[in-house]
Amino acid sequence: MKKGGCPIQALVLAAGKGRRLRSRHPKPLLKVGGTPLVDRVIAGLREAGVENITVVYGHSRVRDHLKGRGLRLVKNSNPELGPAHSLRLGLEGLEKGPFLLVMSDHLFDHRMLSRLMEDEPRRTTLCIDRDLDGRDLKEATKVLTEGRMIKAIGKGLSRFNALDTGVFYCTDDVREAALSNRDARSLSEVMGALAAEGRLEAFDATGTFWMDIDTAEDRALAEKRLAEELCKPGDGPVSRHLNRRLSKPLSQVMARLGATPNQISLLSFMAALASALSFAAGIPFWGGVTAQLSSILDGCDGEVARIRGLESRFGAYLDSLLDRYGDVAILLGMTATAPASLWLPGLLAILGSYSISYTASRAEYYTGGRFKGSLENVMNRDVRLFLIMVGGVLGQIGATLAVLALLTNVVVGLRLAAFRPMTSMGEAQKGL
Amino acid sequence: MKKGGCPIQALVLAAGKGRRLRSRHPKPLLKVGGTPLVDRVIAGLREAGVENITVVYGHSRVRDHLKGRGLRLVKNSNPELGPAHSLRLGLEGLEKGPFLLVMSDHLFDHRMLSRLMEDEPRRTTLCIDRDLDGRDLKEATKVLTEGRMIKAIGKGLSRFNALDTGVFYCTDDVREAALSNRDARSLSEVMGALAAEGRLEAFDATGTFWMDIDTAEDRALAEKRLAEELCKPGDGPVSRHLNRRLSKPLSQVMARLGATPNQISLLSFMAALASALSFAAGIPFWGGVTAQLSSILDGCDGEVARIRGLESRFGAYLDSLLDRYGDVAILLGMTATAPASLWLPGLLAILGSYSISYTASRAEYYTGGRFKGSLENVMNRDVRLFLIMVGGVLGQIGATLAVLALLTNVVVGLRLAAFRPMTSMGEAQKGL
Repeated sequence: MKKGGCPIQALVLAAGKGRRLRSRHPKPLLKVGGTPLVDRVIAGLREAGVENITVVYGHSRVRDHLKGRGLRLVKNSNPELGPAHSLRLGLEGLEKGPFLLVMSDHLFDHRMLSRLMEDEPRRTTLCIDRDLDGRDLKEATKVLTEGRMIKAIGKGLSRFNALDTGVFYCTDDVREAALSNRDARSLSEVMGALAAEGRLEAFDATGTFWMDIDTAEDRALAEKRLAEELCKPGDGPVSRHLNRRLSKPLSQVMARLGATPNQISLLSFMAALASALSFAAGIPFWGGVTAQLSSILDGCDGEVARIRGLESRFGAYLDSLLDRYGDVAILLGMTATAPASLWLPGLLAILGSYSISYTASRAEYYTGGRFKGSLENVMNRDVRLFLIMVGGVLGQIGATLAVLALLTNVVVGLRLAAFRPMTSMGEAQKGL
Repeated sequence: MKKGGCPIQALVLAAGKGRRLRSRHPKPLLKVGGTPLVDRVIAGLREAGVENITVVYGHSRVRDHLKGRGLRLVKNSNPELGPAHSLRLGLEGLEKGPFLLVMSDHLFDHRMLSRLMEDEPRRTTLCIDRDLDGRDLKEATKVLTEGRMIKAIGKGLSRFNALDTGVFYCTDDVREAALSNRDARSLSEVMGALAAEGRLEAFDATGTFWMDIDTAEDRALAEKRLAEELCKPGDGPVSRHLNRRLSKPLSQVMARLGATPNQISLLSFMAALASALSFAAGIPFWGGVTAQLSSILDGCDGEVARIRGLESRFGAYLDSLLDRYGDVAILLGMTATAPASLWLPGLLAILGSYSISYTASRAEYYTGGRFKGSLENVMNRDVRLFLIMVGGVLGQIGATLAVLALLTNVVVGLRLAAFRPMTSMGEAQKGL
């Protein structure tokens, strides 16, 4: 992530004790969805493109956990002096210029960082949440805004209209405020000094997931919320009504066992290969069942990535590529077992299936959006693999290939007509 | 294109006479690369997502040319009162709020508009060019900037450091300045009044193509410049050294004949189908030759789009989709004529070829960039079709399929390793 051409740096405050968590771990090492809190924060920063990361820690076990990972580690020997002291220690080693400031005990969707930066903040800016429902208002840090400006910030505010998410974009103003308020213990005192001088802005991040983890209940709630948010906006009918019901509990087990998203993508690919071999070996029943298994596992990689805080563009890229090879393998296995006269439907099904994914990718690139109509999405991967499962179980290979060959290519044609209206909606301009 | 969520409107000044052009056409109808100037400007605005366009015209032939195209047309009965008069007439019908202001006698790359808007201008802003080389400084409108602010603007400036490209983002300040300077004839007088009050900013568009068309020489130079800029940054070796040499002159002829880019995309696809049929019919020599012809024509659609000012995301989308179907058709034709034992290499060549394009598309989406290494690009379409041409002419179908099957899939593997470093370079964050 860059600001005005320069890569931005980040400061992570991870010296909290977390006594209220009743955990034997230092708070930054507390696992949520199988991944320590501090690892989630660092993965989020890295996924947002931040390379230069400084972590202020209090406990030597946090240091041992983080060393050798390309981070600058700063020891806070007096964590009892509060987060403002950690901030001052961290600032000593930071380069001049803006930086992102995040807390290791705040879970947040890493897209909050990119949205904040896309807004091109000029002053010091705090991501705020205007939705107060369901939040623990006693423990939360509250914010009073007026327009874009933050007027006051603190746990004890009686008048407030938003909450502090713990994600800051900081200019050199913060350096100055931290050093000139040497007695400040909480971040709110430092930031409050800026707010009083009209130098603290709010960025409205309402709707982007975040949670402050203070208690064991928070942690349980966070795991529940993460699991609830697993449905993707582009989910098709088979995903929604069948696959997600099976993949969600499966993903939570796999996350707890420490499986990585990329391992699960490979597992889904291997299920597709098993399906291909079953079809080719003349056991279409198992071919169909393993195709559906591959489809269910295809949902798990993204879910585990989200639960464990390991989402990455590389993972998404690997997943989409393995899906294409898996699709072709299954259709090839089906074609190999069908009468020779079916090689053309088989090949057209391969061409059409790949083209469904290719057109989706091109449309995303050129317009930034997805095809919206249900007809344009009727042959998405969840539906295709479901048809293959049904066809395999019923032993109707030829008919399945013919249906896939016809419908996938018809949908690709529909997507030509559907593309034009999308270009006037898309705000993003792409180079041609 | 939107500004703060609202679609932005545009005003095109097209009442100029263009006497110096020695043309029988009113200046807005003067054809450059086969397309009237005013059509290029309107196509550029539309491609940038601007729907609400007002054109101020002087000549009734311009009105006849533009009517029925969803534009608001405003007549200027006194074009001799200058562009400032056209501006005042156009403003009467515009909605309050910001608008883009462009001249019909300025050619410009439509990406200038999107770059300007991405900069999120707050004040009235003029796109300027700091590269004065090769410009006709006598006729150009000159600009003196200090930091981001424009200090002075006009044809007669003796001190200047940039040129006026004729592309403005206007706030209500322009409305006010146009109405309070009723005697102003040139735009420079209106904008100069804003500059004097510190209300006119500059956006540096240096490097983005633009040209003011005042004389027949300008027009000839514009056509030459457009033709020179036809190479794409991603061009492979066969494109650069062979295809472009043939496609460039061909494109200029086709542009003059009035061919549209989409027609040429279809022509290239039909050449691919001819190649597929030739291979399948056992005439590999012609299969190879028509495959190469398809490859050359594949360069022409983009070139004609650029020459004629008809670049569009839909055209790029259609082209990429037809290319995929063409690729598969040719490889299928080759596989059909090869011994039956070659069906697997044939199918792997289809899978690998499609995956080269799919991985390029995914990488563009996730990182905003292309694969840079030469190994990762060694199996791009220009090279694949060249190999097919050589294989066809030599009658070596089996060997060609085997080479394609192997190398395309190896490159897809290399692109897995090459993807990770790209994600830290890419500034754009994409939703996962």
